[in-house]
Amino acid sequence: MFDSGVGGLTVLKAIRERFPNTDLVYLGDTARVPYGTRSSETVIRYSLECAGFLTEKGIDVLVVACNTASSYAIDVLRSRFPVPLVGVVDPGVKEAARVSKGKVGVIGTQATVKSGTYQRILRSMGFEVVAKACPLFVPLVEEGLVEGEITDRVVEMYLSDLKEAGVDTLILGCTHYPLLRRSIERFMEGVYIVDSSEAVAKDLDSFVVDSGSGTTELYFTDRYQNLDRMVELIMGERIPPVLVSEGSLPGSPF
Amino acid sequence: MFDSGVGGLTVLKAIRERFPNTDLVYLGDTARVPYGTRSSETVIRYSLECAGFLTEKGIDVLVVACNTASSYAIDVLRSRFPVPLVGVVDPGVKEAARVSKGKVGVIGTQATVKSGTYQRILRSMGFEVVAKACPLFVPLVEEGLVEGEITDRVVEMYLSDLKEAGVDTLILGCTHYPLLRRSIERFMEGVYIVDSSEAVAKDLDSFVVDSGSGTTELYFTDRYQNLDRMVELIMGERIPPVLVSEGSLPGSPF
Repeated sequence: MFDSGVGGLTVLKAIRERFPNTDLVYLGDTARVPYGTRSSETVIRYSLECAGFLTEKGIDVLVVACNTASSYAIDVLRSRFPVPLVGVVDPGVKEAARVSKGKVGVIGTQATVKSGTYQRILRSMGFEVVAKACPLFVPLVEEGLVEGEITDRVVEMYLSDLKEAGVDTLILGCTHYPLLRRSIERFMEGVYIVDSSEAVAKDLDSFVVDSGSGTTELYFTDRYQNLDRMVELIMGERIPPVLVSEGSLPGSPF
Repeated sequence: MFDSGVGGLTVLKAIRERFPNTDLVYLGDTARVPYGTRSSETVIRYSLECAGFLTEKGIDVLVVACNTASSYAIDVLRSRFPVPLVGVVDPGVKEAARVSKGKVGVIGTQATVKSGTYQRILRSMGFEVVAKACPLFVPLVEEGLVEGEITDRVVEMYLSDLKEAGVDTLILGCTHYPLLRRSIERFMEGVYIVDSSEAVAKDLDSFVVDSGSGTTELYFTDRYQNLDRMVELIMGERIPPVLVSEGSLPGSPF
C-alpha cells in the first residue's frame, strides 16, 4: 500500500482491523507530500516509483491509498504492474451508490477534484454530483486541529455549497478527511458520510485470505516534522518508521 | 535565486524593484514544496540540486530565497558553490537588530523554527527571542485567504504567545508571510514588522551593479495547481513559467 504521506494510514488501520493476520507493507512518500497540489504528470511519475518499490518487496496485492494517485494513476499502474490493484475511488463510489437517493457530494484535494474521476464515474451511474476541493483540510489535520472553532469555520466555508445543493451523501475523497469527520458530520447534519478507508478494506475481501504473520512495516521517504505524532494519532500506537530515500525508489518500469 | 516554491517570488519582486536592469533567474521547486515540514537532510539535498541548476545557468550571485533552506543549507551551499551567496536569514536579523529594543519575535515554518538558526544568531547579539512555528500560514496564503475571519483567527492562535511575551519586533521568517502582513500587523499592533524580502534586496547592494537587460526567467519543477494564480498574486503580472523536471536537476557536486 502506498500513499503520498501519512493520510493513507487511515486505510492501513481499517485494513489491519479487517485482516489481522495479513502482512502489510506501507510506503508514505513524505519527501514529496502533498500530491494534491501537483500536476497529473508528476502524480503519475511519483505513483509509478512508489508502486515499483512495493513490487520489489514481493507484495500480492497493491492498494493505492491516496485519492489523488487513485484519480490520476490507477489505469497506468494497472497496465504496468502484474498484481491485483485496489484504489480508494471505486470502493468509495460503490458505497455512495449503495446509499444515495440521487445527489452525491465529493470533497478532496484540488488535484483529485480537478481530475474529475469521482464525478465521471458517479454521473455515468446516474447520480447528480457536487464536487469541492478543500485544500486547507490536510494542513488542519497535520497541525492537529481536528476540532475547534477554526476547524468548524473552515468546514463551513468549504461545505456550505454542498449543504445548500442538498446532497444526501458525502464522499470523503481524501484519506486525511476521516480525522475531521466529527466537525463535518455536525455541519452536514443528516447526510450519509462515506469514509473510503472502510470501503477499501471491505473491497479487499476478494483478494485477501488473511493468512500470514500479521506484521506491519512502515516506510517513509522522509522523517518529516510531524511524522511520529501523525503515526500515533492515526494508528493509536507507536510504530517505528523505516526511512528510504525517494531518490532510491525504482524508476518507472517502462 | 531559488525557493521551495512560489513564496520566494516576494523576494524576487523586491529585488527587481531595487535592480530593474539586472537579469534574474528564479527556480521554484514546486514538485517538492513545502520544504518547511521536511528533515534537515532532505532540505540540504534539495537545496544543493537547486543551486546546481542555477550555477549551470551562469549566475553571478546566488540568493537563497527560502527561509528553511537558508536556515539549514546556507553553510553547505557556501562551501560548495563558488559564487557570492545571500540567504534570507542574515538580512532579516540585521534589520531586526537595527530597530529592536531587546525582545524579538520570529515566526516561520516548523523546520525553520526547529533549526534554531534565527534564535542562535539573535541571542549571540544579546537579544531575547521568542520563536513560533505557524504551519497553517503557508496553506492559507496558497488558498488565497490573505484576510478575513479565518485568517484573523489563525493569526491570533499563533501570535498570542508573542504578543503576551511583549516582543517589540517581529521577523516574518517565511517568504509567504508578507502576504498576511495586514492581519499580522493589526493583531501585533505597535510591533515593528521585519519583511526579509526588502532586507535581502538592500543586502544585495554590495554584489550587484544593476547592469544588464532586466530580464526575468521563472523556472518551476512542477506546474502545480495554483501556480499561475500565485505568480500573478505576488508579482502583480503574468509571467509565463518554464517547467524543468526536478529529476533533471544536477545532483550534489560532491
